[in-house]
Order: sequence, then structure tokens, then C-alpha cells
Amino acid sequence: MISAVALRARLDRGELTEEAAIRLNLETIEDLDGEIRAFVALNPGEGRPAGAGRPGPLSGIAIGVKDIIDTADMPTEMGSPIYAGWRPRADAALVMLARKAGGSILGKTATTHFAQGDPPATRNPHDRAHTPGGSSSGSAAAVAAGMVPLAFGTQTGGSVIRPASYCGVAAIKPSYRLLPTPGIKSYSISLDTAGLFAASVADAAFALAALTGRDFTLPEEMQPLRIGVTRQGFAGNVDLESEAALETAAEMLERGGAKLQDLDDPPEFAEAWRLHPVIGDGEALRSLAWEWETHRKLIPPKLTEALSAAEAIGPEEFDEARRAGKRARVAAHKFFRDIDAVITFSAPGAAPKGLESTGDAKFNRLWTLLGVPCVNVPGCRDSRGLPVGVQVIAPFGRDDRALAAASLLERAMRHVLA
Amino acid sequence: MISAVALRARLDRGELTEEAAIRLNLETIEDLDGEIRAFVALNPGEGRPAGAGRPGPLSGIAIGVKDIIDTADMPTEMGSPIYAGWRPRADAALVMLARKAGGSILGKTATTHFAQGDPPATRNPHDRAHTPGGSSSGSAAAVAAGMVPLAFGTQTGGSVIRPASYCGVAAIKPSYRLLPTPGIKSYSISLDTAGLFAASVADAAFALAALTGRDFTLPEEMQPLRIGVTRQGFAGNVDLESEAALETAAEMLERGGAKLQDLDDPPEFAEAWRLHPVIGDGEALRSLAWEWETHRKLIPPKLTEALSAAEAIGPEEFDEARRAGKRARVAAHKFFRDIDAVITFSAPGAAPKGLESTGDAKFNRLWTLLGVPCVNVPGCRDSRGLPVGVQVIAPFGRDDRALAAASLLERAMRHVLA
Repeated sequence: MISAVALRARLDRGELTEEAAIRLNLETIEDLDGEIRAFVALNPGEGRPAGAGRPGPLSGIAIGVKDIIDTADMPTEMGSPIYAGWRPRADAALVMLARKAGGSILGKTATTHFAQGDPPATRNPHDRAHTPGGSSSGSAAAVAAGMVPLAFGTQTGGSVIRPASYCGVAAIKPSYRLLPTPGIKSYSISLDTAGLFAASVADAAFALAALTGRDFTLPEEMQPLRIGVTRQGFAGNVDLESEAALETAAEMLERGGAKLQDLDDPPEFAEAWRLHPVIGDGEALRSLAWEWETHRKLIPPKLTEALSAAEAIGPEEFDEARRAGKRARVAAHKFFRDIDAVITFSAPGAAPKGLESTGDAKFNRLWTLLGVPCVNVPGCRDSRGLPVGVQVIAPFGRDDRALAAASLLERAMRHVLA
Repeated sequence: MISAVALRARLDRGELTEEAAIRLNLETIEDLDGEIRAFVALNPGEGRPAGAGRPGPLSGIAIGVKDIIDTADMPTEMGSPIYAGWRPRADAALVMLARKAGGSILGKTATTHFAQGDPPATRNPHDRAHTPGGSSSGSAAAVAAGMVPLAFGTQTGGSVIRPASYCGVAAIKPSYRLLPTPGIKSYSISLDTAGLFAASVADAAFALAALTGRDFTLPEEMQPLRIGVTRQGFAGNVDLESEAALETAAEMLERGGAKLQDLDDPPEFAEAWRLHPVIGDGEALRSLAWEWETHRKLIPPKLTEALSAAEAIGPEEFDEARRAGKRARVAAHKFFRDIDAVITFSAPGAAPKGLESTGDAKFNRLWTLLGVPCVNVPGCRDSRGLPVGVQVIAPFGRDDRALAAASLLERAMRHVLA
């Protein structure tokens, strides 16, 4: 994988030109992407002398952009034949933030149809018979395969943290709206959250700071962290490998001086978790109304199932789900009150075999609805060598703390697992 | 003006065909719109035998759609030369809701550039030397001139309630997200709210019910309403005609049996009101980043001023404004606790003379930030005969109550002012 921080340092020292850095990315894509299929479009303007971005912290840094995010210079096909060849007029706000920071938008990455459950052709770089996860399938795989140092995705259920876990890359789903969503195809406006994938937590923090102008400097030294542990009992069973990864993470943090405590999930969490699809699919039925009403034959099976089910959701049920979400956000204040961050599963296990399913978002849904920052920390592997991530979560608006705790954990795990 | 409720009844009784109803609208547009300039595009498919919508509560009802709202069958130009001739791929969610309810999307209505302050050529139907208000200029004018029974707009500051007041039409800016915003060009994602214009409050209630599947039946009889009155002292001075309209409204409501009380605005309201532009313009700098970075010469003066100022907003200032908004929403619970609805000014006065300015949103900004439903009740006029509205506001999610109180007021004013 390509570390954005290390690449920035090499570029700054003049060991590599921006054009050369991007050309290397393009060569890796040419070598690997016939098999991995992370990209659905490449920017013909990048990687050539005129193609480097403006001066800025991300200049020379190539970025893969999930193909539900509008780009003015490339098609944006939403993973769907309904948008074959579609060219938006403008860049999405997030894309323009990246360009303003100097980043090179190298290409568009494969997504499930409209960021729901029907998978693209992308394969997991760690085992091509396995799914990379979704819906940000191509972005996770592109970073994991070392094609680009940075990629953008979105999460409505678990579409950033889960593929990051399956592909063994770092990722952050920031606080709701920390990264802007205008110009991103909406599934559920209350839940859709833009996020990013990088080689390590430090790389993700660097990129998030470059995009937002906020300070996400990781502390060299930290007070002993108070870490809560939740197994999200309301979400059902977990595979042994995810349980093992969580236990390893807890042990590493404890050895590093953190104080760990098991947390009880408030009943509001279970209720919000259960009602997440009412909000998500209920809003999707409106967001995707044009596609559903005028191109129904081109809507794939899983999305058809979700939208058909959503047709039965009445206003009372929708309002009650919205209120349950609000109650859970209030309960989250108390949940996070005496701790710095929470660790939990990023996914129910390693990437499932086969490309028919992108896996299960059950350990991600609640946190998306709460709008709190979530970081996937890579490092663990199962007996087959497939990555298994651990999820670090902080209160709303404390993305700095989520990144700091995640980075501490990542370094501890690297040290021991190396 | 055309009452949607009365038109529905005539259509249902077979006194008029759907095609004939829409043809009448097109004839009115042909007669008047050379002067009024409410429309920027007409749908060539409507008004012909094949053009009537599906069966539904809005079949035969023509709708004007603000030109920042995507339509698959017409250009969507955002009031800006940057989008000249631009054709989106899909209908916005709101447009598709209207089509599903049978509505005919008759044309696109004039908007200020990107729904900010730089005006289109639209004139006020009550006096063509005066502004119709903005940013939903064409939608308010089209309904006021009897061109269509229904039109869609959006409000980020005061872009629905203010033009409705200036043009003498009913309008509702519903609770935040009651009407869906995907497919609407974003200015400020935290504030942008879709709304609608109609001939009367009853017509607005009918349309909102048809679009949302919710029950907004206006009660025949009501318990005596508890009505709070605020003059929004934090927002500065008001013209005599708006003060007179508010006093008339208070008197009418009291005569109808309502219990009125002057309310103290909590300090959180003043603070949120003051910081509204930090959120609005701060988010706009991201939403419009592509236009600002790549087509700056085509950005008009008022928008240039807003976006230039926004460049100085740092993350701390933005976060503090967001938190001030949240504190104001908490304070609103107490503010609304002992009353059914609030009445206040819809605008600082009647429509200003000239077309250079669309007027001042100072009496609308707070309520947009609070996300609470606001209804403009037409009926009063100033000494020159220009309309002056009164604003009725209810707590979040109580759009039914806002409409009921507004309808009561509207009927009382009609009775007396007739």
C-alpha cells in the first residue's frame, strides 16, 4: 500500500516528481486492475505533465473516487446501467475540496448499484475469490492493492468501515457532514456520510486534515485512554475471527496503558439499530424515485427488495424511526460520557467468499445513524490470511479523538503482529 | 389565482378535462409571462392530450418548479449562465413525488443565481415595478398571476415565505426534510428546505398531503388556539405595513376566540439568528466550490460577496454556529411549550420597488435554522395595494398545526377584509 504521508515526504524532498508519482499509480492500475476491477473510469487528464493538481498538501497524491460522487471530467455511472456514460456538469463538493488541496482525481471506483447491496465486479486484493465488501468496493480495493494512496467512499449502513475491514486498509467514516455530500447521489439523506480510505490511520488523518482545513495531528504522547468495549449484542452473532481481533485490540490497548471497560448498550441503541432500515430505505424510495418509477427493469434484485419493502413504510412508522434515532443520539451522550473512545467489531468476520454479497453492515448501522466518527484499524488476519479490522468510535465531532485512539491501537498492533 | 382544491373538485365533477385545465394554464402564461417572466422553460410535453399526468390527487394540476430543482425532461439552469442548457439525467425526488401524485410539471420557474441574492428578471404581478421577492421568484409570481395553481420553491434564508408575502400567495416552508431535497442544487445542506406556493392555505395543505401521503385535513372546528406573538426584536426594524398586518392578524385571531400572548424570544434565538449566515454561506462555499473555482467570472455580485466572506470562516467559527443552532432548537421546545402556534412578520414590509434586490430575509432566517414549519398567510395589503403577509409558525413536525392555525387566520382575514 502507498502511505500518503510517506509519499508527501518523498515529494517534498524532491525524491519523486508529482507526475512520476501519479504515473506509478497508473502503472499499478494497469498491472493489477484487469483482475481486481477497482476502477470503472480513469481520468485521461491525470498522470501527464499538465495533469498534476495545484500546489497543496495533496499535490501528487492520486485519489480514487466512488462512482456515485459527481465528477465534471469523468462519467459518473452510480454502478447502474441507468447512468451509463452519464457526465455531470459539476464536481461534487468533496471532489472540489480534494482538487483545492492539490489532489489528483485519478479515476472513479466501482460501487454497488446506487451504493446499496448489488455488487460490482470488484475482487478482494487479498483473495480474489472473496468480496472486497461494499458499497465502496472499488475504493477499498484500490487502496488495498496499492493503486492509489487515497480513495473516497460513502457509508449509509456500513459501506466504508466494512470494506476497509475486509480489504485490510484504514478508513474513517467521519462525523455526519464533516465531509460535504452535495454532488453525491443520495440514498438516505439522513444517513449518507462521505468517508475515506488510506493505507494507515495516520494517512487517513493527514488526508482528512488536508481536505477540511482542520487539525488532526496525531499526538505523540497521550494520557492513558479510557476505552469502552461493546460487542453490540443487539446486532447478533459474530465470527470467531472478529471476536479474536477485538480481544487482540483490547489486549494491545491495555498493554499500552489504556483503561478498558465493558459497556452496556443502552436500550435506545438496540431500537435505533432495528429501525435504521426504515430511515435508510424509506428515504431511498424518495431519493431513487425517478429510477424506480421510470427504469424499474434496470434496478437489480437487492435494491428492488429494499425499495419494494420501503413502499409499505407509512409516515407514522418513518417518523417513529426518526425519533428513535434522535433518542439514541441523546443516549449516546451518556454512553460516551466517561470514556475517550469505544472499540467494537468492524464487520461480522473476514470477507465472505464469493462476489454475490458484499457482506453484512450489522455492526456499522447504529454508528452511522448516530453520526459519530468511526475508524477501521487494520492489522489482524484470520487463519487464511484475510484481513479483519477493529472499529474505533468517538463521540460526535470528536474525529480527532477517534483518529488518535485508532492510531495508538494501530501502532500497538503493528508492533506486536509484525 | 387558481385554487387547487376548487380545480380538483371541478375536474372530479367532469366540468373540465385535465387537458383543458392545463391548456388554460398555458394560455395564461402566454398572455402574461412576457411581462411577468415567471417561467424560464415550459414543458413541451404538457398541455397536449398525452401530457396529462397519471391518475392521482394532482392529476390535471399544473406545477411550476423552481429552476434549481432537477427535471429529466427540461433544462435546469440554476438561474446561472454556468448551467445554460443543462439537462439533468433524473428528476429530483420532489418532482417525482409530484408526478406520482398525478401532477403535471408544466415548466421551470425563475430563480436567483443558485438561490442566493442576485435576482432574475421576474416582476411582481401586483406591481411590475416591484420585486416578487426571491429566491423562489418565479414560483411565487406564477401562482400570484394565476398561471399555475401550484409551484415549488426552496428556502435557505427566507426564499419561500418572503416572496409569498410580497406576491400575496399562500406558502408553506415545511419542517426540515418533510419534502425531500435530493436532486435540488444545494446551497446549505443544513438549511435548504423545499416548500410550496398555492392560492390559499387550504390549497397548500391539499398539495402537501398529496405529495407526502400525510393527513393535513384542516379541522372544521378547533379548540380555542393559544397563539404566541413575536416581533423578533433581534432582527431589527420593521415597516409600518408589516406591523399593521401583524396587528390585524392578532385582532382577527382574538375575535375568533384564540388566546394571544406576547412571547419573549430566548437569547439562544438571537444568537442563532446572528450566526445563520455562517452556516449558510459556510456550507455554500463547499456546495458551490466547483462553480466558484472554475467559473468565478460568471458568479454575480451578491453571491460573490457571500462566498468571499465565507472564505474567512474557520472550522471553529463554523462549529460554534452549528452548536448555536442546536442550542436554539433546544430552546425552541420551551418557546413553543404552552402555545399552539406563533405569529410574526413574513417580511419587513411590502415588496420593495425595483428589481435589483429581492428583499430581506431577516424575519425568516431563524425559523429556517430551527427547521420548524412556517406558513405565509396572505390577505393584508398596504396603502398602494401591495400584499403583506403574516407568518404562522408551529413546532418541528407539527406542519398540520401550522396549516390549521394559518387557515383559521386566513378565513378570518378574508371575512373581514373582503
